Amino acid sequence: MCPQNVGILAMEVYFPPTCIQQDILEDFDGVSKGKYTIGLGQDCMAFCSEVEDVISMGLTAVTSLLEKYEVDPRQIGRLEVGSETVIDKSKSIKTFLMNVFQDCGNTDIEGVDSTNACYGGTAALFNCVNWVESNSWDGRYGMVVCTDSAVYAEGPARPTGGAAAIAMLIGTDAPIAFESKFRASHMSHVYDFYKPDLASEYPVVDGKLSQTCYLMTLDSCYNGYCHKYEKLEGKQFSIADADYFVFHSPYNKLVQKSFARLVFSDVVRNASSVEESAKEKLGQFTSLTGDESYQNRDLEKASQQAAKQYYDKKVQPGTLINKQVGNMYTASIYAAFASLIHNKYSSLVNVLFDIFTVQRDPDGNRVVMFSYGSGLSATMFSLHLSEGKPPFSLSNIAKVMNVDEKLKTRTELAPEKFVQLMKVMEHRYGGKDFVTSKDTSLLAPGTYYLTEVDSKYRRFYAKKTS
Amino acid sequence: MCPQNVGILAMEVYFPPTCIQQDILEDFDGVSKGKYTIGLGQDCMAFCSEVEDVISMGLTAVTSLLEKYEVDPRQIGRLEVGSETVIDKSKSIKTFLMNVFQDCGNTDIEGVDSTNACYGGTAALFNCVNWVESNSWDGRYGMVVCTDSAVYAEGPARPTGGAAAIAMLIGTDAPIAFESKFRASHMSHVYDFYKPDLASEYPVVDGKLSQTCYLMTLDSCYNGYCHKYEKLEGKQFSIADADYFVFHSPYNKLVQKSFARLVFSDVVRNASSVEESAKEKLGQFTSLTGDESYQNRDLEKASQQAAKQYYDKKVQPGTLINKQVGNMYTASIYAAFASLIHNKYSSLVNVLFDIFTVQRDPDGNRVVMFSYGSGLSATMFSLHLSEGKPPFSLSNIAKVMNVDEKLKTRTELAPEKFVQLMKVMEHRYGGKDFVTSKDTSLLAPGTYYLTEVDSKYRRFYAKKTS
Repeated sequence: MCPQNVGILAMEVYFPPTCIQQDILEDFDGVSKGKYTIGLGQDCMAFCSEVEDVISMGLTAVTSLLEKYEVDPRQIGRLEVGSETVIDKSKSIKTFLMNVFQDCGNTDIEGVDSTNACYGGTAALFNCVNWVESNSWDGRYGMVVCTDSAVYAEGPARPTGGAAAIAMLIGTDAPIAFESKFRASHMSHVYDFYKPDLASEYPVVDGKLSQTCYLMTLDSCYNGYCHKYEKLEGKQFSIADADYFVFHSPYNKLVQKSFARLVFSDVVRNASSVEESAKEKLGQFTSLTGDESYQNRDLEKASQQAAKQYYDKKVQPGTLINKQVGNMYTASIYAAFASLIHNKYSSLVNVLFDIFTVQRDPDGNRVVMFSYGSGLSATMFSLHLSEGKPPFSLSNIAKVMNVDEKLKTRTELAPEKFVQLMKVMEHRYGGKDFVTSKDTSLLAPGTYYLTEVDSKYRRFYAKKTS
Repeated sequence: MCPQNVGILAMEVYFPPTCIQQDILEDFDGVSKGKYTIGLGQDCMAFCSEVEDVISMGLTAVTSLLEKYEVDPRQIGRLEVGSETVIDKSKSIKTFLMNVFQDCGNTDIEGVDSTNACYGGTAALFNCVNWVESNSWDGRYGMVVCTDSAVYAEGPARPTGGAAAIAMLIGTDAPIAFESKFRASHMSHVYDFYKPDLASEYPVVDGKLSQTCYLMTLDSCYNGYCHKYEKLEGKQFSIADADYFVFHSPYNKLVQKSFARLVFSDVVRNASSVEESAKEKLGQFTSLTGDESYQNRDLEKASQQAAKQYYDKKVQPGTLINKQVGNMYTASIYAAFASLIHNKYSSLVNVLFDIFTVQRDPDGNRVVMFSYGSGLSATMFSLHLSEGKPPFSLSNIAKVMNVDEKLKTRTELAPEKFVQLMKVMEHRYGGKDFVTSKDTSLLAPGTYYLTEVDSKYRRFYAKKTS
């Protein structure tokens, strides 16, 4: 008997409570008004203070998920981590997270860390789902943790930082199930964003190349996805066949461009669902070569106009956390997905549905996901939403994640403080023999924090109690 | 219809042609005679010269496998890498290997890098096998690459280095099939060996702790494996139920101790298959606590004596490459497995079988594998050998790997040269803006080598032609 509807049963999102508003950063950096807020499309940026890192965030997300969904840690049979924030080049982040499980005697947990820039979380997720569908599955849950801290050297890339950890529980009969046969990847050898300077936390970035690579692989994956869909379903695929599109989001502007690109792709492929108005606006660009089309500003503008009405319905619901927190690397696409669940299934929405006695579409919602990691690795895949049964229901996931409250209770830091903190972190990166301030005043109860790195580089963490 | 007998269809082994004899290193280091050759149980150590690294070795292993088994690169649907040798903290080694596939237009290849010390290759292998057994399998082959360069700072750990890349092709109806239900892992948070000094290629090692962790997880995994076997098969498991045991091999002496530990474990568990002589020798130690037993020299000696006859038959065939090449981190356990296939299925063995018209046991050979990675992650699992059909047959795998020839054609370097080279590599690690000597005189045709790292840290490779 094959496991059915394997996918995501539960989610928890964690991001640091420390953040800075992008418009304030614009003023501080002396750049033109709107450069970050409109040019990048970002509202706010979260960052780890000196008591948080990818390990503490991962511990917080994992323990919070287990507690809030009342999952016994002994019920976890696989734990995988996606991250590109390297604290140790050999010892996996997963082994740090084992602290949560070994305390109750569960050490029989497969899985390690998956690495390739922002794509590692998707690789971990695929691995975990495949495990449940494989002969080696032992009937227990899988768990995936995406945890990253995105920091950049002073300069134009700095406002594209962010930080978060997301934990996901994997199993059968999931409200968020994989449509495993519709999937297309594009992987190749490119130097668009990489971290070859091992002593520095900051990446080497070719921003323009990275954006082109993102759009090029988006095209390639969308074509592959459509091809596989059409082969299996015997009918054409276009954006009309999915309810939502969720993208890896280095900054929101790229998400706007990406969705517009899919609309243009439907015009190029002459999908029957494309409206006449879109064909009129974009038809003139279909003779451009791929390379020309990535650089063409007129096309970019026209396709964003043509895409606008669909964007608001199919993409915008999955942008909240990303605009408020920033780039979260491996966690970015799952934060976007969490935004969608929050926007569509939180209690306020449910109350409104109840008031107007609107029958929810109980089933059949397709979400197309696009995951991108520089270097490069990209996959388009799709998920199928159904309400599910508590505690593993979409409404409960929205309730547990409690996104509004988490965003509301953050503390904005002044840009001077932020810069000062970045300097401290630069100094400490890869370092040993220091203690942190242990200042947990800004952290919510239940949050893990770093207390010390000893003379042998061993890291020690504690949990804030109520 | 579920895929049957998923496992390893083909293998290729690559190790650098540059090496140093351990007895010469003993003299050079001024240590007591036999410290490395008997104390560690090692004969020789391979190392990358300044034109080789984990990427070039990976490229060599992958292209050689595809060519020698005549596999079309378009037939690969997943490619995963296990490694703990970090050249870039974000860009995966897998993306470098994509060069082999993108040239023929195949970019739709899932998988990234798996990381946790020496365990990453096993994680990659499990992921690849699970993929073939999952709903997302598209019918193509998977490929796993384990590639590592183990180097240590001057001192007692230096002779435990080594380097290699192993490529494995994964698919159905494999001559080396997974017994997926018999598997037990032990993972926990320990600082026995780690790489927190990001600017250095060398690890931080607590040798004594690491050996205890290895033996402790071996016990834990063996108990878990036996328990699962007994639950499913309804009969007791002991070492008599497996034909071969293959271990991750940091140095051969630990493999000897490990197998002896399993014999002791059978005595403790009072397995019915244990011979009276072993019970007499080891019975007195069964009351020791776990911790005491790891440190007890009398037990170590007595259990190695009791295990000796089984070791020669069940373990020794899987030790050749590891004793000759050294620790290969993620590749180590698969080099041990390759040694077993070489010893049991190479043409000379086949000729002898033919001469004496001995009927080979065509089927039913169980190989128990123990994979260990510091930090820590460990799994015991088992494989089932059957001859298979060419090119994916055990005899052909032995022929392609051509281990004797590869060992015979190496070049021994003087210890002064070796130390000089280590200094050059220390200096270059994490560096940029240099060209290599491009000296390929020692490399076999078909070997990839590093030519340059440019001012943007971009790495360039070439392939030695005949």
